[in-house]
Amino acid sequence: MTERPRFTPLAASLPATVPFVGPEAIVRQRGRPFAARLGPSPRVLEAIRAAAPDLWMYADPENHGLKAAFGAALGLPPAHVAIGAGIDELLGLTVRLFAGPGDAVVTSLGAYPTFNFHVVGFGARLVTVPYRNDREDLDALAARAAADNAAIVYLANPDNPMGSWWPAADIMRFVEAVPATTLVVLDEAYGETAPEGTLPPPGFSRPNLLRFRTLSKAYGLAGLRCAAVTGEPDLVQAFDKVRNHFGMGRIAEPAAVAALGDGEHLARTLARIAAARERIGRIAGAHGLAALPSATNFVAIDCDRDGAFAKAVLDGLIARDIFVRKPVAPGLDRTIRVSVGPDAELDLFEAALGPALAEARG
Amino acid sequence: MTERPRFTPLAASLPATVPFVGPEAIVRQRGRPFAARLGPSPRVLEAIRAAAPDLWMYADPENHGLKAAFGAALGLPPAHVAIGAGIDELLGLTVRLFAGPGDAVVTSLGAYPTFNFHVVGFGARLVTVPYRNDREDLDALAARAAADNAAIVYLANPDNPMGSWWPAADIMRFVEAVPATTLVVLDEAYGETAPEGTLPPPGFSRPNLLRFRTLSKAYGLAGLRCAAVTGEPDLVQAFDKVRNHFGMGRIAEPAAVAALGDGEHLARTLARIAAARERIGRIAGAHGLAALPSATNFVAIDCDRDGAFAKAVLDGLIARDIFVRKPVAPGLDRTIRVSVGPDAELDLFEAALGPALAEARG
Repeated sequence: MTERPRFTPLAASLPATVPFVGPEAIVRQRGRPFAARLGPSPRVLEAIRAAAPDLWMYADPENHGLKAAFGAALGLPPAHVAIGAGIDELLGLTVRLFAGPGDAVVTSLGAYPTFNFHVVGFGARLVTVPYRNDREDLDALAARAAADNAAIVYLANPDNPMGSWWPAADIMRFVEAVPATTLVVLDEAYGETAPEGTLPPPGFSRPNLLRFRTLSKAYGLAGLRCAAVTGEPDLVQAFDKVRNHFGMGRIAEPAAVAALGDGEHLARTLARIAAARERIGRIAGAHGLAALPSATNFVAIDCDRDGAFAKAVLDGLIARDIFVRKPVAPGLDRTIRVSVGPDAELDLFEAALGPALAEARG
Repeated sequence: MTERPRFTPLAASLPATVPFVGPEAIVRQRGRPFAARLGPSPRVLEAIRAAAPDLWMYADPENHGLKAAFGAALGLPPAHVAIGAGIDELLGLTVRLFAGPGDAVVTSLGAYPTFNFHVVGFGARLVTVPYRNDREDLDALAARAAADNAAIVYLANPDNPMGSWWPAADIMRFVEAVPATTLVVLDEAYGETAPEGTLPPPGFSRPNLLRFRTLSKAYGLAGLRCAAVTGEPDLVQAFDKVRNHFGMGRIAEPAAVAALGDGEHLARTLARIAAARERIGRIAGAHGLAALPSATNFVAIDCDRDGAFAKAVLDGLIARDIFVRKPVAPGLDRTIRVSVGPDAELDLFEAALGPALAEARG
């Protein structure tokens, strides 16, 4: 046998498969593009175009301007903010900081898979709690964190993939119920699209709480890679120990300042998202299906049978150029997940749903 | 004592200090900006501006187009390429994949500090070999890798911070001399600015070799965060186990395609870099100092005394609005590191060097 460089035992044990499929892979397979979704503020585009000549420079390694911009938007001092190239990166760093090999990390069965990818990737032990009535089960998560002496418990509010949410008061009770030695990861990626009263006040802070916000969802800047984590200064400053200090793109700061400062565009986007959610609900209803209430920029539609049936509906939609996803966890897998988009795209969804359903029903 | 969430023992042991200072921190302290350096191709700026409206989308998680673009530029099939948000990110993932807690990792004393940051960050054991005549000591690095049964040996060619380099034949002999069980990290960030014959041919590949290229240096796109690692398919595909699959910025692909495709701009930039290196050498010579030969976009100037004296020269330059860096390792620390730039910036350097030297000489 040829001698080779040695992967670490952990790296060697990790699955080699790519767990993430983007629309590009499907587009490459079938050779046709999908339609557009809701984009960023024109002011953001202007700021990016103006900043492009500065791309020869690295971004400020201290992220001084980005911390100030997120801090101002959230009403927090910059010392309570750390910056990352998307919540995914920040979740990876969080797991690395707090969960060692074998440590228990609690999440819901079927919740955000990229968090699980990092838990497995750092050798921690994933412990899952089932959803209850299509919502994350706060009592069960807190109880499980205590029973397993968990290093981290993960909660998304609003939730991905179901679009469900809890009022702030329940979230705050949940945080208090988690043991003080367990870090609470509160993923608020969809915070802007939630009804008022969903997010605890920005000042709600605990020594074991990290909260995550992003420009990828309501601000329409998924391709910018810019997110923030907020919490007590000693917690957020720990990211300096492990993050790539020159890792942020140079245009993230001007884009974030413009995006976070354009409340009118955000309000227009939120109105469009709300209208699109309602329309998706009407389309589902017209086909005899129930749309689950959603606080996000997507809607889970209950296909009212098992996972195989929902998968057949999804395949029928993708064959008709409609890019939808679906949860895979038992119970949740009876739904398909449809993203909001411009009316023209929802027209296509409306036209495709009937034939896709008929096909799936055989 | 209040109960707190637990950092992992490794995370708790890491230094809390920020090891990286960018020009922004100094600008904030003194309130005045530094002058500009060499920027990207106008075609890149055009591509970025055209792609800005697409920023609502995530980038392709498979980085299909980026692998193809770097592969085409290097004459390699895409399966030999993995993509990351800068070489820094790829170095971190490499350490994570190959060096576990306590494993020996060999580098030169005073070489690229971000690699060391990752080695320490993942709990591996840093083993250093001194420079020899201001170059990395190939024989000593290979011997040390064998003696310590190293997981990784790091080599930058051309080198940062000294600007020195080895011809391709020596690099290839070095790779052959390293044990087959040790991964060779060959950092070719400055590959474009090196004399012909410095880089082994793109097809030079070994089962224990990873090579790194970036858009941050000669292509003038440090703020874009886009780099590639090349090697045997089984090595580069291992990055899929741990990388953030949606971690690349959306505009990286069109920018990279434009940058890698604009050979004329690259040739112009390389000519300007060569001319600026020569001019920095003349300026140093006019002040009785020797500029070290450089294959990079910066020049190390030998201040011909000890580290304290070179630091005094550096402080004098920064006080005069000239942003320079300096190596800190014993022996190397007698130099200051001056980046190439437009003539107007070198005029300022020329005007400031005499007074800074006079001040340092006291």
